This record gives sequence, C-alpha cells and structure tokens, in this order.
Amino acid sequence: MPVEVYMFEEAAGLNLSKSELGGKGYGLVEMTKLGLPVPPGIVITTNMCNEFFKRGGKLWPELEAAILAKVSELERHTGKRFGDETNPLLVSVRSGAPVSMPGMMDTVLNLGINDRVTAVLARKTGDERFAYDTYRRFIQLFGKIVIGVPGEKFDAVLEKQKQAKGAKSDMDVDAAGWREVAKQYNELIKREAGKPVPQDPKEQLLMAVGAVFGSWWNKRAIEYRKIYKVPDSLGTAVNIVTMVYGNLDDKSGTGVAFTRDPSSGARELYGEFLMRAQGEDVVAGIRTPEQVERLNKELPNAYKELVSTAKKLERHFRDMQDIEFTVEAGKLYMLQTRNGKRTANAAVKIAIDMVAEGLITKEEAVLRVEPEQLQRLLYKQIDPKAKAEPMLKGLAAAPGAAAGRIVFTNEEAKAASERHEKVILVRPETTPEDIVGIASSNGVLTSRGGMTSHAAVVTRGMGKPCIVGAESAKISVEHGTLVVGDKTIKKGDIITIDGGSGLVFEGEMPLVEPRMSADVTELLSWADGFRRLGVRANADTPEMARKARENGASGIGLDRTERMFNAPDRLAIIQKMILAETREERESYLAKLKPMQKSDFKTIFREMEGLPVTIRLLDVPLHEFLPKLEEILPEVTEMRIRGADKAKLADRERILRRVMELKEYNPMMGQRGVRLSLMYPEIYMMQAGAIFEAAAELKKEERIDVEPQIMISQVAEAEEMGRARAIVEAQAAEVAKSTGVKLKYEVGSMIETPRAALTAPMIAKYADFFSFGTNDLTQATFAFSRDDVESKFMPFYLDNKLLQNNPFETLDQSGVGRLVAMAASEGKDANPKLHVGICGEHGGDPRSIEFFNSTRIDYVSCSPYRVPVARLSAAQAELRKRHKESSTV
Amino acid sequence: MPVEVYMFEEAAGLNLSKSELGGKGYGLVEMTKLGLPVPPGIVITTNMCNEFFKRGGKLWPELEAAILAKVSELERHTGKRFGDETNPLLVSVRSGAPVSMPGMMDTVLNLGINDRVTAVLARKTGDERFAYDTYRRFIQLFGKIVIGVPGEKFDAVLEKQKQAKGAKSDMDVDAAGWREVAKQYNELIKREAGKPVPQDPKEQLLMAVGAVFGSWWNKRAIEYRKIYKVPDSLGTAVNIVTMVYGNLDDKSGTGVAFTRDPSSGARELYGEFLMRAQGEDVVAGIRTPEQVERLNKELPNAYKELVSTAKKLERHFRDMQDIEFTVEAGKLYMLQTRNGKRTANAAVKIAIDMVAEGLITKEEAVLRVEPEQLQRLLYKQIDPKAKAEPMLKGLAAAPGAAAGRIVFTNEEAKAASERHEKVILVRPETTPEDIVGIASSNGVLTSRGGMTSHAAVVTRGMGKPCIVGAESAKISVEHGTLVVGDKTIKKGDIITIDGGSGLVFEGEMPLVEPRMSADVTELLSWADGFRRLGVRANADTPEMARKARENGASGIGLDRTERMFNAPDRLAIIQKMILAETREERESYLAKLKPMQKSDFKTIFREMEGLPVTIRLLDVPLHEFLPKLEEILPEVTEMRIRGADKAKLADRERILRRVMELKEYNPMMGQRGVRLSLMYPEIYMMQAGAIFEAAAELKKEERIDVEPQIMISQVAEAEEMGRARAIVEAQAAEVAKSTGVKLKYEVGSMIETPRAALTAPMIAKYADFFSFGTNDLTQATFAFSRDDVESKFMPFYLDNKLLQNNPFETLDQSGVGRLVAMAASEGKDANPKLHVGICGEHGGDPRSIEFFNSTRIDYVSCSPYRVPVARLSAAQAELRKRHKESSTV
Repeated sequence: MPVEVYMFEEAAGLNLSKSELGGKGYGLVEMTKLGLPVPPGIVITTNMCNEFFKRGGKLWPELEAAILAKVSELERHTGKRFGDETNPLLVSVRSGAPVSMPGMMDTVLNLGINDRVTAVLARKTGDERFAYDTYRRFIQLFGKIVIGVPGEKFDAVLEKQKQAKGAKSDMDVDAAGWREVAKQYNELIKREAGKPVPQDPKEQLLMAVGAVFGSWWNKRAIEYRKIYKVPDSLGTAVNIVTMVYGNLDDKSGTGVAFTRDPSSGARELYGEFLMRAQGEDVVAGIRTPEQVERLNKELPNAYKELVSTAKKLERHFRDMQDIEFTVEAGKLYMLQTRNGKRTANAAVKIAIDMVAEGLITKEEAVLRVEPEQLQRLLYKQIDPKAKAEPMLKGLAAAPGAAAGRIVFTNEEAKAASERHEKVILVRPETTPEDIVGIASSNGVLTSRGGMTSHAAVVTRGMGKPCIVGAESAKISVEHGTLVVGDKTIKKGDIITIDGGSGLVFEGEMPLVEPRMSADVTELLSWADGFRRLGVRANADTPEMARKARENGASGIGLDRTERMFNAPDRLAIIQKMILAETREERESYLAKLKPMQKSDFKTIFREMEGLPVTIRLLDVPLHEFLPKLEEILPEVTEMRIRGADKAKLADRERILRRVMELKEYNPMMGQRGVRLSLMYPEIYMMQAGAIFEAAAELKKEERIDVEPQIMISQVAEAEEMGRARAIVEAQAAEVAKSTGVKLKYEVGSMIETPRAALTAPMIAKYADFFSFGTNDLTQATFAFSRDDVESKFMPFYLDNKLLQNNPFETLDQSGVGRLVAMAASEGKDANPKLHVGICGEHGGDPRSIEFFNSTRIDYVSCSPYRVPVARLSAAQAELRKRHKESSTV
Repeated sequence: MPVEVYMFEEAAGLNLSKSELGGKGYGLVEMTKLGLPVPPGIVITTNMCNEFFKRGGKLWPELEAAILAKVSELERHTGKRFGDETNPLLVSVRSGAPVSMPGMMDTVLNLGINDRVTAVLARKTGDERFAYDTYRRFIQLFGKIVIGVPGEKFDAVLEKQKQAKGAKSDMDVDAAGWREVAKQYNELIKREAGKPVPQDPKEQLLMAVGAVFGSWWNKRAIEYRKIYKVPDSLGTAVNIVTMVYGNLDDKSGTGVAFTRDPSSGARELYGEFLMRAQGEDVVAGIRTPEQVERLNKELPNAYKELVSTAKKLERHFRDMQDIEFTVEAGKLYMLQTRNGKRTANAAVKIAIDMVAEGLITKEEAVLRVEPEQLQRLLYKQIDPKAKAEPMLKGLAAAPGAAAGRIVFTNEEAKAASERHEKVILVRPETTPEDIVGIASSNGVLTSRGGMTSHAAVVTRGMGKPCIVGAESAKISVEHGTLVVGDKTIKKGDIITIDGGSGLVFEGEMPLVEPRMSADVTELLSWADGFRRLGVRANADTPEMARKARENGASGIGLDRTERMFNAPDRLAIIQKMILAETREERESYLAKLKPMQKSDFKTIFREMEGLPVTIRLLDVPLHEFLPKLEEILPEVTEMRIRGADKAKLADRERILRRVMELKEYNPMMGQRGVRLSLMYPEIYMMQAGAIFEAAAELKKEERIDVEPQIMISQVAEAEEMGRARAIVEAQAAEVAKSTGVKLKYEVGSMIETPRAALTAPMIAKYADFFSFGTNDLTQATFAFSRDDVESKFMPFYLDNKLLQNNPFETLDQSGVGRLVAMAASEGKDANPKLHVGICGEHGGDPRSIEFFNSTRIDYVSCSPYRVPVARLSAAQAELRKRHKESSTV
C-alpha cells in the first residue's frame, strides 16, 4: 500500500473523499479549497490507520519518512521549523474519523515544544506565562495520551500547585507557577513511565501519530461505535495542523459555533467564545464561555469575517455547519467545520428554510431529517434538559413518557382515573383481564414479558408508554411495593417512565408535549411526493384508525380482531365459547359476539371511509383467553386442600382441565390462526359474516364505501389458504344475498411462516394480497422466540456483536429479508394482480423500510404513531435508490 | 378428447402403457401379446374415466358408439352375439386402475344374460341349474353395483330361499331354487329401485361401464387411496371380457395363484383352486378352496399349461406374478396377471433367486424390495396371522411390539425387571426421572406427548417399542389403572403394544422375532455398491453404536450428549449445576460430570474404531433437567399450606424459583444449543475437553483411532458458529498440549433453523461440515410445534388432505426441501471442503432419502434400526435417478 500523507492544498487538488480524509481533515481541506483562513497542515488518510493495525499497531519506515518529508514542506511553507531557536514550529495532532465521534479519540496540542522551544517562545512573545502554560498543556496531553499516564495524576499536581500558590483558577497561575507545573509534570511522567517526554519534536510527532491511530481502538471509541453502529473498519485519519494561539494575547481567543441555532433552527450564528483560551477550555467547563456575539464587541473585524465565513461554508456545504475557530492576535483561523447536529425541530426548520433560500432542493430537504428525530416530535418526552439518574431499566416496549402515582391493581387504576389522577400501572405482567387497568392508567411497567407480551402489544396499540421485562424489579401486588435493589417504591409514590428508552425515574420528571408543526406537515407532504411505498397503519380501534388517518396513513394494514375479544364484556363470552363442548354450543356464544364485532367494524369502517381496511381474522391460540396455568393451578390446589365449596371447585376445575387440554409446549408454533379456524370454521364464519354485514349496512344506510381486505394468518401451505378463502367467500355470497349489497373485498394471506414464503407462488393462486408478518417470520426464521430471547439472550448477543442489530427491530436482510424479497417477487410472478405489504413492527423502522423499498413490496403498515416516520423513511429510501441508480448509469 | 376403446389385440399393437390400460387391462393385453389363452375382450382407457368425471359422471355419445362398435367386433371375433338365441355373448365388466387396489372397485360378471338368454344357456349346456345360477349371479351384481340395491338385501333373499329348501350351502340349491332366487332378486330390484334390470344386453353394458367408472369415487376406493397415497387423478380403466365358465361342468373350475410362494419366496406355483366355481367363490370363503396342485390330479393338462404359463409370465414380466385363471370344460383361460404381493422374506428371497436365475440384474433386485418391508424384518412384530381388535390407539413413537404386565412407576418397573418379568411402563408422560422405569420395561405407553416427547425420543434410542399421546386413555398412577372408555386395565394386567402402528391390545398377542437373513445381507451388500449417499446412525450409547455398526452404518451421524446427562447418577449433578449461582460453582459441578462424559465417549469411540463419530454438544434448554412447573407448583403450594418443614420448603422453593426463571414461552425457540452455551461457555468447554481427552487417551493407550466431529446446534447466524468453533479449538489445543497427542477432528454446524439454511455460505466459512436437523427445520419452516401439532391438528390435516404427508415423517420438498437443497449447494460453493449430512428422522425415510439423493447432500444418519432401510433406499434412489437420467439423454 503506497503511503498517503498530504499537505492540505495537495489533498484539495486530489479531491479525496471524506472516508479517506476523515471528517476533520475533509473540513480543513475543503476550507483550504475555499481560500478560508486555515492554518497550514498535513493529513494522513484513514487507509494508513488500517494499514497501521494490519502491521500490528506500528508505524513503518515508509510512512515515517513520508510524514517527516511533509513536515519539511510545512516548515518551508510556514517559515517555522521544528525546534528552531528563532521561529519554532508547533503543531496539533488531531484524530478525525469519517463519521463524527465527538470526544471519543485523542488530540495532542502544541507538539514541537520542549525546554528550549519554551524559552524561545517566552522570549519571542515576551510572555513567559504564555510559554510555560503552552508547555505544560503539551506535557499533560502527551503524557496522558501518548505515554498513558492517568489524567487524574496531572490534575492532582496542578491542584497542589494552585493550593500552594493560593490560586483560585488557572488564570491566577503565573509564569513561575506554570514552569513549576511543567517541571512536576515531567517528573511525574518519568516516575510513572520510566522515561520523560522526548525533547526531539520529530520523535514527539511520530509517537503522537501512532497514539492517535491507536485511539481508534480505545474503550470509549469502541463503546461509541457499538452504540451508534459505526463500522470498526472505517479507521481514523490524522491531521497535523500548525498551531495558532487563542491564548496568545488580549486579542486572542477561541470558540465554537453553529451557523444556525441547533435547537430552534433560527438563521443566526450561535455559539460560545472565550478570550485568551486554547483548545478544550471552551467546552471543559472550567471557565464560563460567552455568547459568540460578544466577539463583535471585542474583535469586530474577526467577528465580521467569522459571520461571512459561516455563510460561505453553508453555501459550500449546503447544510448547517458546526465550526471551531481561533483568533490569534486579532486574526481569525478556522480549525474545523462539519455538518452540525441539531434537534428534531431545528432539523425540520432548517431543511424547510434552506429550500426557501434556494440552498437545497426539496429532495435534499427530505433527506436531511432523520426519521427517528421526527418520531421524537410525535410523543411526549422527558424534557431533554432535565437530568436525573434512572432507578430501573426495562425493555422499551411502547414509546412516549408518562409520570404518575403507581398502582398495582385494575381497581386502583380505575378508581384513580375516575378521580382524574395520573397513574402508572405496575404489574409482574398483564393478561387480558387487566385491560381495564391499562385503559385507566397513563403508562404501564411490568417486570416480566417481552416486546410482544400482552402489555407491550396493548399499550403500543393505545399509544401509551410502556416498559416491560424490567427484571431487576421485584413487584409485589399484595404488598403494593416495587423494589429495586435496596430501594422500595410504594403504592401512591410517583414515578416517571420513558417508554422510548426503557428508563424509569423516581418522582415526577418534566415532560415536553409533542407537536406536529406546519413545517413537519410540509416536509411530509414533500416526502409523499417522492415515495414509492404506500404507508398504512396497524389499528384495532376507531381511535387508532382516526390517529392513523390524521398521521397520513392510506388505509389500515392490520386490524387485529382478537383485541376486540379482549374487551371486558366479551372475554366472559369467549371463555364460555372455549369451554363449550359441542359446535352448537360454540356457535351460540359466537352468535352473541357477532353483533359486537359488527359494531366494532362499523366504527372503524366509518373512520376509514374510502380507504382499504385489512382485517386479520382470529390469530391467537384459544388458551390466551383463559387464565394462566400458574395462576389457576395453585388456586385449585388450594381450593382442594382447604375444602372449598363443591360447585365452585368444580367450576374452577373445569377451567383448569381445559387449560391443561389447551396447554401447548410452544404456543407460538401451535394451534392458532388458520390451523385453529379450519378445525372450528364457525369462528371464521362469524368474523367474516360480521365484516360483510357491517360493510353492507354502512353502504346501504350511510352510503359509506369501504373495502375490507380479509387476512388469514399462520398460513404454511397453499391448501390452507384455499380452504379459508372458500369459507370467507361463502359468507360474502350469503351477505350479498341477504342484503342485496354487492361488496368489493379481497382475501389475502399473511406470510409469516418460512414455508409460506418458500411456497409463495402456490399460495398466490388463492390470495389477492400478501402481508408479511415480519415479527413472526423473524421468530421462525431464526427460531428465536421473541418473548424468551429478548429478555434472556438478546442483550448478550448485541453486546457481544453476535448480532449487529436486534432483528425484531431492524429487519435481518440476509435471512428474513431474503425470504421476503423472494416471496414478494415469486408471488407476483405467479399472480400479477397480487399486491404485497408488510405489517410487522419493521414497517415503522427506517432501515427496514429502506430494504423493503428495494423489493417488490407495495406498502408498509405500522403503528399509527409511526406513520409519519414511515412516510419520511419511504421517501428517503426511494430518493437514495434513485440516486444510486443514476450514479451507476 | 378422442375416444379410446380397443380390442385387446389392438391395444397390444399400440403398446399402450399401464397408466392408460390400468393394471388388469395391461395384464390381459400383455398376455394377449404373448399368445396366452386370454378370452377376447375390450379395454376402455383410464383417460375415458377422467373424461367421464369431467362430463359430470356421464357417458357421452361418441364413447357409447365406440363401445358398441367394439362389441360388434367382439361378436365377430367370438362368433357369439349379445342376446343371441343360439350362441349368446356374455361378458364381464371389470375395473382396473393403474395401481392395484384389490377389492376396492366393482366388477359385473355374466353381463348380457337376460330371461331369454338364460333359457338358451340352459338348453345349450343342458344344465338348467348352471344357467339360473349364472343369471342370479348377474342380477345380484348388477343390482348391487349398477343399480345400487344394498348387498344384504340379496343375501337375505338367498338365505330365506335356502332355509325354505333346507339347503346347507349354495351347492345344495337346485335349478328351480336358482330360478326362484333370480325371480325374487328381480322383484327386489324393482321394489327398491322402481325399475328392473334391463333385458337389453347393450343397455346393461353401457350402464355397467358407467357404474365401474363411478366406483372410482366410492367410499372404499377413496379411503384406500388416502391410506396408500394413490393419486385421485389416475382413474380406472374398464375391461369388457368374454365370459368363460368355471362353473360350467365337472371339468371346470377357477383359481388364483402366485408363481412363487408369496410368504417364503420358494420357487413353486402357489395358490388355490375350486372346481365348479366362478369368480369370487375362491376368495369369498363360502367354500374352502383346495391347493392349486390338486388341479394336477383333476385336470392334468390344464395344470401343465398353467405351470408353463406361469413360467412364461415370469420370464416376460421378470417378476413373480399373481394370476387368476378359469378352466372351462377342461380348457385353461387366463383372466389376470400382475406382480404379486409378497412378504418381506419372500421379497428378498425372490429378488436374490431371480438374479441367480438370470432373470433380473442386481440393480433390479435391489429395486424389487420395498424398504419398509425390509424394516419389518428388523423388529419384533405382532404375528400378522393373529387377529384381534385394538383397545386403544396412540402415536406410533418407536417401532416394534412388546407384551407385558402394566406398571405405573419406576419402582414397579425396576422390581419387575429384577424378577425377569416383562412389563410395559404406562405413564401420563415421562420425564428424565423416569429413565430407570423406561430402562427396566419392555415398552412404554403414555397418554400425552408427541413424537419428540421424552418417552418417544428415549425409547427410539433404546430400540424399545413406544406409543405416546394415546389421548383417549385415562391413566391414574395413583390408582394403578388405565381406563379406555368403559374398560379398565389394572396394574399387573397384560397388554401388547405395537409401536409401529400405535395400536394397543388387551392380553398377550403372539410376537414374531426379527431376523436379518443371509439373503438380506447379500441384497444390502449389492445396495451398498450402488448408492451415492453414505449412511450413518444416530447413536448415543455403546449399545446403539454396536447396533449401528452391525447394521452397516459407516459412522455415527448424531450422538446426543444430553442423553448422557439423563443417566440417574448424573441428573442430580446437573440439577445442582443449574441451581448454581456463580460460574465457579457451575464449573465445580461440570468438573464432576467431565470424567463421566469422558468415559461415555471412550466406550462409544471403541465401538466405532476407525469411523467418524459426530457428537452434538448440549442442545436442550436447561429447564428440561428440572421438574415440570405443573408438578413442582402444586407441591410447593401444598407444602406452604400444610406448613411443611422449613428447610425442605426452602429447598423446593429454590427449585420452583429456578423453574420459573428458566420457564420459556416457546422453549423450542428459546435459550438452547449454541445460544445457551455461548453465555455459559464452560458447558462446551467441559464437553469438548471430555471428547478430546477421551480420543487422546484411546489413541495413546489403546491405539484406537477415531475422528470426533463436533457439532454445534441451533445455529442461526455465522458469528455464533465462529465463536463456538473457537471454544472447541481452544480445548483441542489444550488437550494436544497436555497429552502430546494430535487429533484429527472437525467442527460443524447443525442446519436446523431456516436462517442457518438461508445464510449457509456465511456459516460454511466456519464449518467443516453441515448436518441438517430436519426435525427442527421442519418445525420452524412450517412454524408447527411438533409436540403440539401431532396430537392437536395433524390428524385433521392429513384426513382432510390439507397436507399430503406428515412432514415430520416424509420431508416436505417444496418448503423444507427447498431450503435443504439450497443450503447444501450454496454451502459447498462457499466452502468446497464442506461435507453435508442430515440427521433428522427423515434420514431413515425412503421417500425423503430419494429427495436427499437428488441434492448435494453426502450422507444420511438415522436410528441404528433404520440403517438397513436407509442403505437400501439410498441405492434405490440412485438407481432410479440414473435410470431417469439415462432415459432423458
């Protein structure tokens, strides 16, 4: 590999990429190109970093030679020389990865200084204090970063010195003080590492370059990359930049700024500035920095140049910039520029404004806002400014934040809600019987269960915050306590839960209200113009349907009918149906449910007038509607031992017996969905009948048109779909006959078993549409039971990089995605009229949407609260795809 | 569709296939070709049957015209005419499907007879009794089959007549008697159907042809096709054959024969014969037929011709024939020939003999024996001659038959086995704690559990018969009773179980011993020469390993190490390990297990000297080694209520707590296999260490070479395999260092999750081999939990043809098979050294083996008891494949 070490001007001529130059290097090179005041410097590419590690973490002769050759060039360029007695060259050595990793890697300032150079500096500037301050800063950074002496030890030395001199702050330390500190630092290093900081600037430089490369694999950086999913393979570039001195004199200072307000997005320079300061002083919090406008008073020319530079940078980079600068003796130097991080609000506003300013196109504006940022605008949040330590962490099951008094029972929750009190329902786990409690509370916290547990699914549907599987909490319903470690929270105490992060806080945290501003609405309308994928919502209730429509869904992609069974007045009927011993008896209970289901469908159909509504017929196994074995078994055991009333015992024993009969070893792969309903066709008959009657009556009586798309779940074999379709069609014919209304409807298949995906062409012959149930499909493809793995081994897998992403959040492309793409394509080949959607939770995940956009899928369906995110993501995916295609052509 | 109605000679010239002519028609046409004495006749092809149903079950004018035209030809040919006053033509109308379905469809004899023809017949033969006997036979058959009058009604008429005349048997009925019967039959039909049997022979014929076609969809035939998996689409041909009369005179008779003994395979004509009889008389059991040699005395010429015909047929068809013949007035007529069914013994002997006789090649011999037949030679069977009604049916979990007294507890089983008594262990279900009971008994019967339940898996391994999931039985361990309906079997009563059929009989049924004859051994050695697939065995114990070797396995394809944990002395240690709270504590228990595992491996390695042994490291979830929740929960509840000893309670509570912690919603997709062992690497370390130490010591101390092939289960992601491999390799290196022995070994991956199959190329980079776990792969691909579906809905699915086969018995080719073929191929492309096997139960299933042979799989592995079947199946698969390839070239 040839060595890649360039002067900034040289790199500018070569048009090197950000992935080669790193973020910082790229900014410096681009600014050099623009003729902005950048101190002269050298960049060593990221390729050299990777080569460095390939060679066992060592610099090699060719690279060393190249670096030193460029240093000579730098010396010629600046007229300064390393170790020179009259005009010594000092440089900073800065890391810079292709992706911003703020504060994660190391930088050495003032390199090139040594005992003699310090003296020269003192003499030359006439400022001995400045010279020794500069020296001690270098020794400290070099000692810590390159040699590896712990930072605290330097702090201790400095503290002691300040005490001895009675100095309150660094500003009070005089020249002698810094000289003493420098001396003691050097002694410290010698003591700790056995050798002092080298005096030879070239030796310093090569050591520092190695250390900066090495910092790519320091613990902080590794952690950061894990969290932000930055590939380990990127590597860091190294920038060697001629030092300028913000601490030189009274006309010097240093600052950071954003070209627009990163919080509101307002179009004004926004930042902080410190006179007589260098490097980290601004952000270190030792001295309080001033607003950047202040510079206008202190150094108006420099400020004017800064403002015009900011404008130039925005015009060049066509985005808001985050810059670092230093003023040395009144002259402005630009040390860094990069695209600035911003809040969700600011992101949207800046994107919209820049279109208006003619800086970017609408396409670019749509690409500028992170979908997850947008999401944050749609839920209540804990105020980002509030700081507190969480007391507990669980699985982030349903987003949003809520604060309230904790309650442990449905009765307490209901009573509190009737008093208009905010409460959080806390339970080991929830069952269908807890629906009242959930409905009455502002949020739910459970110690058991996974992302598809009852609590998680129900709250997501309701748009309420929820945390599940907080396994380190001991919840006693009996005692009304929530115990975490040695902390006990009692009934009536207030907690705050953040369902977006899974964090629980003691007491009431300030919350920020969501808002969907005019800017967001505009941005999304642009997005809609660019996307290929349709966006529907998963909605089971009229409220959710309304929310879906508000948020721009073009239909319902998944209406789970069993939620309708879980309503308190219906559960009792369902249970009786399950205990029934003959088809006739079963049908009598189904007949009672039918008008209820019909009325449910009507309310949803009214909300969705004119749009398709995809209804999934009964999916879950029957035992989900009965008590759990671990509840009913001890209950009956106890009744038996205590000699309970015979009739009551017999009653509970009957339920226990049925629970035992229906018990399944692996209910997720048991008798559910189509497998259940082909054996008990009366269930599908009731449901399909209720749907068609509801639609027919609405059409007749209210002139409301809807298109029911009836969906069969758990299909693994085409024949299942054929039989189920026949049952549904028979009901449609019957309703058409009895009402005289002919309805438009479709019958489709969930594709959620691997076999359904593998035999898609056969299933497509019986289906008008496919809808991928990517949750179940992921489960079966990995053979990972979601409820088990998320609490048991998924954290271990993610921490240890056994998996790069949680496949239940972001679609696994190489396994599950391969099935999805294949089945969508083969299904459409077999049945050209087939339309194809996805309705798993991946439907609201931006990276998954990007993948779906690359397949023959027609639409995604997600939570109503994720619809805006999906709209934006779908647009971005399509824009990126077009871009990629046009750049390959 | 052109009509297809042919004279036999005509069909012979056209070289029509068996699928067009049906089995019977094909035999008749072939015999016609050979110049054998076949009565002239007409064949209507199976295509006409399908067309008949396409047209709504009606004959159509063109077909009717063609049939009648051929009848005219037949009349010219025979010189007889329908309804002729001097020489009337009578025919039989016989069904004949391409696949033999004995007795399933209908035949009408003596068609063409009517009142006038009967009189002619009486006059012409001078035998009025014969004429009316013939007439009444026709009326009865026509009435029953074509008109649809129930058979019993004819029987009642005949019975009454016989009583009235004091006749003991049909032979005692005289001419007047038969005339009266014929009359009463005609009256019966008129009464029942409103119209009599038509007098016009052509009308009779067309009605009969329609009825024979129609019988393809009668209930019997449908059932038969379902059981024997005969496609509904085949249809039946119809044969119209000139009647010959075995009941004509004293030189007449009728018989059936096999060209060799179908039971022993001996090379001699074997059959039965009745003088003065027609059609079904021989098999109807009304008169006792005589051995066919008897014919030699009665009609030596006819016998001689029969023997030489038999030889000719064998030479022509190159297989043993099952023939029907009639002698009319001393002249032999051949009415049918087809390949004869035979016992397993006979099949093998005939195949071997025919090679010696030069009739067939070794390839053909290998193709002549049904693998499932061979299987029957390897297990104890209930004597096929014994007849009894089963009292109960469950799932056929492990083949073989056993009789014994029933016991309900491990103690009873152990005590009985110590008294050398044969016992059957009867339990609701078994757990690892029942291992002693299972080991002590001759067979196991459970009311719960599926094909992969503990009882099923353990007994299959031990080669003991087992029936599970006999859900209609109520088993009370407490009362020592097994109740089925109103029948109660008590402890100590004898039952017989047939684990091959799932049937349970009261009392002791006679059993037949298995045997592997020299003929079988020879046949299998030929098979070995033809097959491409290797055959290994699934064996967990030295006994099974020995059996595997005896049966010709070329290695062990699956050694499940957890069975070793289930031994009674180890289970206690395992449980302690699971309850351990630190890694150190866990390791201390593992250290106790290690020498035990090592010694296990040594015994197996000694048996398998020189052959590869594939060892699967721990696969099952930890909770499988603990008591079940539904046992421990009521126990603890009761202890709490009754105020049990505190220490004991605490002990049981600790177990309960751990059971609750380890409880999984879907254990099949939970924390098991590699997912468990990467979190607790000490388990793999112990197991791999034990394997390598065992191999090293054997090599060093006993000069025994083995090749351990270590297998990682439940892999879903390449990275898992990479990490697991690293753990194993580290152990190998350690053992190599400590013993100085360098071992040859391999590390491979189970492919049993769909994702592993979909990402095979990535996994192949870390694997020396793949082994498809087709049981689990089938489960996940269908999302069918085997333990749940086999008892709950699989019977419904098979009965209702939602699935053609149980995918847990015969590999599902379109779903699971697609994954298998794809992964084997892509895996080998990615890693050319990769070898690939399968170790699910499909490895012993002939149809599945045929599929595997068509993929890039290298070997199958199955139960040691299925190894001979697999060897034969693999050879047949390859021979058929070659045949297909050479015939397409």
